[in-house]
Amino acid sequence: MSVEIERKFLVVDDRWKSLGSGALLRQGYLSSNADRIVRVRIEGEDAMLTVKGRSVGATRGEWEYPIPLADAAQFLDSLCERPIIEKKRYRIVFEGMTWEVDEFMGDNAGLVVAEIELESEDQAFAKPDWIGVEVTHDARYFNSSLLKHPYSTW
Amino acid sequence: MSVEIERKFLVVDDRWKSLGSGALLRQGYLSSNADRIVRVRIEGEDAMLTVKGRSVGATRGEWEYPIPLADAAQFLDSLCERPIIEKKRYRIVFEGMTWEVDEFMGDNAGLVVAEIELESEDQAFAKPDWIGVEVTHDARYFNSSLLKHPYSTW
Repeated sequence: MSVEIERKFLVVDDRWKSLGSGALLRQGYLSSNADRIVRVRIEGEDAMLTVKGRSVGATRGEWEYPIPLADAAQFLDSLCERPIIEKKRYRIVFEGMTWEVDEFMGDNAGLVVAEIELESEDQAFAKPDWIGVEVTHDARYFNSSLLKHPYSTW
Repeated sequence: MSVEIERKFLVVDDRWKSLGSGALLRQGYLSSNADRIVRVRIEGEDAMLTVKGRSVGATRGEWEYPIPLADAAQFLDSLCERPIIEKKRYRIVFEGMTWEVDEFMGDNAGLVVAEIELESEDQAFAKPDWIGVEVTHDARYFNSSLLKHPYSTW
C-alpha cells in the first residue's frame, strides 16, 4: 500500500494550458463506493487497476496493480459503471513540484482541476498564480462523484 | 480474460469429506454488484484479485490478478464488504474431473456446495453419487449473495 496525500484546486484561468502537453486519460469504476473504490485507468499505453480506501483528511490508502491494456479496455467498454470519465491530463512542473491539471471532457466539460501530491499533509509548496480555491475536501470534485453528478448538472 | 463455465450442486451427505483434504479459503468483495464483481481471495499463501462480469447461463467472464498476500489481508480485514466469507475447500478428483467442494463456515455454516468447471456448457461429465440437486442458476448460492443473505437466515 502507498498512502496518497493530495490537495486539489480549481484554476483561475487557462494560463496553465501553455505550460505542458496533455495526454488522454480514460477511467471508470468497478466500485465507486467511497469505502472501497476500484478504479480502472488507461493513460497512453499503460493500464492500471487501483484500489482506494476511505479518505481521512487529504490522506487515503491506495494500491495499484498494472493490468494488460486489453483487460482495462474491456472493463471500460463493458463492465464499469456508466459513464466513463475522460479527461486530458497535463503535467506541469512549478518550483520543483509537479502539478497534474485535469481538463475534463464529456458531461464534465468545462471543469479543470489541479492536483499536487505531497509527502505529508502539512508540507509547504509554492502555488502558481493560476491556481484558485482549494477543493480537496469538496466531495463534488471526487472523480467517483463526477460519475453520478457530472459538472454539467451542477 | 478467461471464460468461466461452472456448474454447481448441493451434496446429499458427507461421503465427499473422506475423499480429499480441505484448505482454508477467505474471500471478500470490493464489489458484490453482479454486473462487476471484484473479489479478494486468500487460499494458503496465494492471494488473488478477481474481476467477474455478469453471468450468461453458466458462463461468466473472469479476469484474475495475483496480488501480494499483505494487500489481500488488508483488503479482507478493513476494506471489503462485511462479512467476509470463510470456507474450507476440498478438491476431489472423480473420473478425471476435479470437483471443488466448499464447506462454508461462520453465518453460512451447514452449507456445502460442489462445483465443477467445464470447457463448454454442454460438456458431459460423470457425477459422483454424493452429488445432489443442481443450483447453478439459483442466485441464493452465489458467493456474493451469501454475503448479504447468509445460509443461516434462509
